[in-house]
Amino acid sequence: MLYHLFEYLTNNGYDFPGMGLMKYISFRALMATMVALVTGLFLAPKVIRKLQKRQIGEEIRNLGLEGQLSKKGTPTMGGIIILLSILIPALLFGNLANVYVQLLIITTIWLGMIGFLDDGIKVFKKNKEGLNGKYKIIGQVTLGLLVGIVLCTNDNVTIREKIASDGNESVAVYEDVKSTKTNIPFVKDNQFDYSWLAPFNGKAKEIAGWIIYILVIIFIITAVSNGTNLTDGMDGLATGTSAIIGTTIGILAYLSGNSIYASYLNTMYIPATGEVVIFMAAFVGALIGFLWYNTYPAQVFMGDTGSLALGGIIAVSAIIIRKELLIPILCGIFFVESLSVIIQRLYFKYTKRKYGEGRRVFKMSPLHHHFQKEGTDAIIKLPRRAIPEAKIVVRFWIITILLCALTVITLKIR
Amino acid sequence: MLYHLFEYLTNNGYDFPGMGLMKYISFRALMATMVALVTGLFLAPKVIRKLQKRQIGEEIRNLGLEGQLSKKGTPTMGGIIILLSILIPALLFGNLANVYVQLLIITTIWLGMIGFLDDGIKVFKKNKEGLNGKYKIIGQVTLGLLVGIVLCTNDNVTIREKIASDGNESVAVYEDVKSTKTNIPFVKDNQFDYSWLAPFNGKAKEIAGWIIYILVIIFIITAVSNGTNLTDGMDGLATGTSAIIGTTIGILAYLSGNSIYASYLNTMYIPATGEVVIFMAAFVGALIGFLWYNTYPAQVFMGDTGSLALGGIIAVSAIIIRKELLIPILCGIFFVESLSVIIQRLYFKYTKRKYGEGRRVFKMSPLHHHFQKEGTDAIIKLPRRAIPEAKIVVRFWIITILLCALTVITLKIR
Repeated sequence: MLYHLFEYLTNNGYDFPGMGLMKYISFRALMATMVALVTGLFLAPKVIRKLQKRQIGEEIRNLGLEGQLSKKGTPTMGGIIILLSILIPALLFGNLANVYVQLLIITTIWLGMIGFLDDGIKVFKKNKEGLNGKYKIIGQVTLGLLVGIVLCTNDNVTIREKIASDGNESVAVYEDVKSTKTNIPFVKDNQFDYSWLAPFNGKAKEIAGWIIYILVIIFIITAVSNGTNLTDGMDGLATGTSAIIGTTIGILAYLSGNSIYASYLNTMYIPATGEVVIFMAAFVGALIGFLWYNTYPAQVFMGDTGSLALGGIIAVSAIIIRKELLIPILCGIFFVESLSVIIQRLYFKYTKRKYGEGRRVFKMSPLHHHFQKEGTDAIIKLPRRAIPEAKIVVRFWIITILLCALTVITLKIR
Repeated sequence: MLYHLFEYLTNNGYDFPGMGLMKYISFRALMATMVALVTGLFLAPKVIRKLQKRQIGEEIRNLGLEGQLSKKGTPTMGGIIILLSILIPALLFGNLANVYVQLLIITTIWLGMIGFLDDGIKVFKKNKEGLNGKYKIIGQVTLGLLVGIVLCTNDNVTIREKIASDGNESVAVYEDVKSTKTNIPFVKDNQFDYSWLAPFNGKAKEIAGWIIYILVIIFIITAVSNGTNLTDGMDGLATGTSAIIGTTIGILAYLSGNSIYASYLNTMYIPATGEVVIFMAAFVGALIGFLWYNTYPAQVFMGDTGSLALGGIIAVSAIIIRKELLIPILCGIFFVESLSVIIQRLYFKYTKRKYGEGRRVFKMSPLHHHFQKEGTDAIIKLPRRAIPEAKIVVRFWIITILLCALTVITLKIR
């Protein structure tokens, strides 16, 4: 809103020192990070005290993990702190007329509310399962559908394409067009068009392309949101991982929104993604502020209030800058955490049917708990000591940093 | 050495696919990080086992800190892993004819050897004090003097200056000159010349400028090296902090060595600092590999073998890219850790003389141990709970990330 206030003042001839700074994405991003950070750091102790008073603590299921029971009573629903620290600077410094900012704000509030409902049922109704899984999925799919339809129909959602060139770069003609194209590494110009998957021609191919695009968007938002949710099982794990991924998306958005950098990185130029940078700056600031209290040993958990929204924001921002197909690398941790749960369940069901008794691939799933337990791996027959929680978390952070570097580098390789 | 092999092959007309990549700083930096990382990850378990067999464990002084005694027996001198993981990729991918690379390699080996001697005395002679502090300082000052003299006398150590311009930028004439100029924020062109401090004129002023420059170099190398040494008192603290600082110096070196980026960042263009990027890439890769084992709860400590060299490398690389006066911000953690020790000692001596009994400002110094102890602060009269080690470390990392961002941002502000 400050952005619009300054714009209004400028348009009406007002001028005072420093006012021009608001035009710069770098300045607004810096302010967004700082306001988010400060909001988080100041809000957290107050919210933690309130949550403790009302005894909104996580119900810990006894999984026989070391140090696990000492977590009992740690307040949950701390995601509220994250959501507020994202929304306040986003509303202050973002261009609220920008469709991308609108989508990201809706995502934050929508998934935040579903997560809040889920945590609420767990805490107040003492129902450890929380919100019925069906409703969670319905909520995520609905959001995916909304985001997909807006991206397909809104006239401001475009990418810049070279439409004519006689071999002389200086007379190339560019136009901002609606498109089902996205970025993937290792192919010519790093470009892939969803309509290529449609077995039709002409107009039908184009329409099928849009439908495939929307289905992919729905799938990715649901998958990443659930992936973050599963990853959020150790102190600081989802928070730190999301902060690293958010920084990378912010950098990619900055490069995608700048024609010179975009061509250097061999990626698409997408107009108006500068606003995504500001939102991601708020996102990262909010997470760093929260990590201050959430790192091992945690004084507060984010709960589903936080984790569902974090995944959603990561998914939607990656989709906006057309990097959604890089998510398996970028969000590699969420990906393997989800995969570990799926594999564990399928293998258990399969062996139960075949041998009459269910067997397990991992000592426990999601994957992070597997490393907490001593034993011999089922597949790689190697003995392994139990790794302490704090160490698993930092190692997952390290892996995320490497995966994020890899994501950026793959785009550079031709 | 691979760099020189490829150069030799190219010059002799050999050519095979991918050979040209060696020319690119980005490619060599990537390879250096990866080789450093892999070397560290593979070397560490082997070295840890060897150190354990020979019982090269840290002698833990009982300071009444929580979890402290469980550290007994953790092998020290793990710095060897870091030094090898830096030197192998630096020798493989660096341009060894470059004076900056030579200085950085000498720094690593020289301070590594002093640290090794120190650890050796502690471990084998069971002398908890280690090498006499006097000899450590002599070693650091000697290195500082060497670095200072080389930077002052070597013809390849230059910065690019605009020597003529008739107001029309396109006809500006640039020349690489020897100079005592450095970068500081908040002043015109972010430039400061050490010779400004000399109360002379003409040739005398210039010579005095060089002498001041060398004295500053000696002071900074000694201070940062000792600062890292003091900071290395908690699992992963010095390792993570140095990795973050190293990344920032790598980025600044990359920008300083590129005339377009350098002018964008409003900083000096310094020819040939691309090689510093490659060395820092190895440095960061080595630290990330080591952090895998060194993070809380640590399986290995770096010892003085590691910490003295880390500080030295950070100081020398910052000096090379003329950002040495930004070190109090960039290495803020090392700075306040050192300051806490100095304040504690001076105040203790002062109160002992005045009141007959020594009083303390901090519960304990260096600062990180202060936070581990519960109590009321001496100056800010606030009660404070003891903070667990793992949390102090991550918080110090977070502060370092913010300080590094601040360092880059200050250069942008005019």
